[in-house]
Amino acid sequence: MRGRFERARTLAAESGLAGLYVTAGPSFRWLTGESAHPGGWPLWLSAVLVPVEGEPVLVVSEMHARIFELDRSPVRSVLTYLDGQDPGDALRRAFAETGLDGETLGVEDSLWFGDAALLAAAVPAVRLRRASPVFDRLRAVKDADELEHLRLAAAAHDAGYRRAVEVLRPGVTVAEAGTEIVRAMIQAGSESLEIAGAFHHLTDRRFEPGEIVDVDLFPGSHGGYRADTARNVFLGEPSAEAKRLYEATLHAYDAAIAAVRPGVGAESIHIACAAAMGEAGYEQVWKVGHGVGLGDAHEPPLLQLGNRDPLEEGMVFTIDPGAFIARDTPIHVEDTVVVTASGCEALNTFTRKLTIV
Amino acid sequence: MRGRFERARTLAAESGLAGLYVTAGPSFRWLTGESAHPGGWPLWLSAVLVPVEGEPVLVVSEMHARIFELDRSPVRSVLTYLDGQDPGDALRRAFAETGLDGETLGVEDSLWFGDAALLAAAVPAVRLRRASPVFDRLRAVKDADELEHLRLAAAAHDAGYRRAVEVLRPGVTVAEAGTEIVRAMIQAGSESLEIAGAFHHLTDRRFEPGEIVDVDLFPGSHGGYRADTARNVFLGEPSAEAKRLYEATLHAYDAAIAAVRPGVGAESIHIACAAAMGEAGYEQVWKVGHGVGLGDAHEPPLLQLGNRDPLEEGMVFTIDPGAFIARDTPIHVEDTVVVTASGCEALNTFTRKLTIV
Repeated sequence: MRGRFERARTLAAESGLAGLYVTAGPSFRWLTGESAHPGGWPLWLSAVLVPVEGEPVLVVSEMHARIFELDRSPVRSVLTYLDGQDPGDALRRAFAETGLDGETLGVEDSLWFGDAALLAAAVPAVRLRRASPVFDRLRAVKDADELEHLRLAAAAHDAGYRRAVEVLRPGVTVAEAGTEIVRAMIQAGSESLEIAGAFHHLTDRRFEPGEIVDVDLFPGSHGGYRADTARNVFLGEPSAEAKRLYEATLHAYDAAIAAVRPGVGAESIHIACAAAMGEAGYEQVWKVGHGVGLGDAHEPPLLQLGNRDPLEEGMVFTIDPGAFIARDTPIHVEDTVVVTASGCEALNTFTRKLTIV
Repeated sequence: MRGRFERARTLAAESGLAGLYVTAGPSFRWLTGESAHPGGWPLWLSAVLVPVEGEPVLVVSEMHARIFELDRSPVRSVLTYLDGQDPGDALRRAFAETGLDGETLGVEDSLWFGDAALLAAAVPAVRLRRASPVFDRLRAVKDADELEHLRLAAAAHDAGYRRAVEVLRPGVTVAEAGTEIVRAMIQAGSESLEIAGAFHHLTDRRFEPGEIVDVDLFPGSHGGYRADTARNVFLGEPSAEAKRLYEATLHAYDAAIAAVRPGVGAESIHIACAAAMGEAGYEQVWKVGHGVGLGDAHEPPLLQLGNRDPLEEGMVFTIDPGAFIARDTPIHVEDTVVVTASGCEALNTFTRKLTIV
């Protein structure tokens, strides 16, 4: 994991920063190997200071220091404070130790307002700057270990879809079907229990004949890496209009996939997809894709209008034509794909053909 | 829900604020009835402006406007922006419409740094101020509907514990037992699949004879309200030391419960619990409790050193002596309790006695 700190240092230096200030969240986990409770001051402040020159320092509560497996951590210097008390002293020592007091540090957009206020009080000479050019690129290209986690996560989704086709029938409750699908994913190695789409609320409602079920899966599995995929299961023959929308969505999916290759701007994938939806008379009402990895949900690269950052080999993101937003016909075909040297590859393999049970 | 806006206005006025700026999260949901995707700019910006005088205004993406059931929303004015584009214009119109441009607004500590930067660019005359006195009190006292959600969430936990006692045995995998426990909670009406403690990672590891299993439950169920409770299941006779720690933890739990009543400072519950742990030769290494409700995890009131805010009837929080932090003997007895006129009542009823299977 030392190489990850090198990447952080290089990107920070390129942005003219003296270092990075990274709080609880996926970048913290990617750098330290440890997952701090989410949130910030005054609940907990967890931070890793990454100077462009010199060694990083960790600031965490004594509770977190006990939970973390610090013997395997790439960060050797750990400064703590008692939970519920002001971490200002620990922060001051961390800034002194890294030589970053008085410097300009890059922070993520997700830094808490309360944490920024605490820093302004504890180390008033420090300047914080939004550092999207650093954080948008820090974790976007996945290494071999990360890709393996993501492949396993996607394979668990395929198991979930196979089970969905077995259990989804009119009369079955949302809760019963959802738990069966998740159970299949767990048996396939997923370490998480999440499920979305039609199963966002696991209620006692029974599926009805003719319903179009949006099976949207995004468990964090295999070390916290999550794929994000979706398929439909049709409970009976779809209407002509539903079929037409499904065909348009598949066509838009194919257009998006065909546009992916290293070097093209991220927004061009969205534009290709939206054009295909538009040709069929539908509207792409949200961005067609987003990066996935250690984050809770959407992360860079965002495949949306205005993002001209070039795609790179090893980036992993979703392709997700947005017809499912129209809730009476929740058509949803979504894959997690990795950018290859010449195009892209979907990590999951379950059929995208119209599935009727 | 109009009464909730009145509470927000009153608390804001008491803090000398012209209004509140509330972004995606539990307070947003509490006020609007709608759950925006978490995060902030540049992914999405979702905000409700609450002026002390006049009507609130909602600023959301067009995607969110389509997902929300705006016909039931208590906020009548909705300003939108296209996903992926700068919401600055919508914000400017919202501040003009509420008369809040140039005023001082209260924000939560969890406001994103990126959102604050966006506001500084879009409405530079607006001043943001941390407003803990408002937000710590806004949702802390639960009304009858909220208490009913929390009682049902706690009852689902009890169902989970009953199933845990049935399925936990040496040789059973963590994944198998965890999914069975969650399945029982779903059958009892829970709408969420989360499980923590020993089941935080649903692996193929098999439980071993003599193991002490930390069954830590905190699903969001019944409208998103979550209880947070824990019990141990002992796989065989505990060691003398484990028994001693369990007794100490129960004693500390009782001491904390006995200290709860309206009017006492929040930290006094922590102090009573820590003293009892200390008498037995153990240390309470983190705060003994935290509020629960619509939030993802810990919310006010925090029962920790330094918090002298008085407890009020109708507050709901955990009582959670922290011996489970020592990971080789994860002793964990946690209840979600409501403050009553004369003390407190645990919302869940599963036995706290030592349970051996």
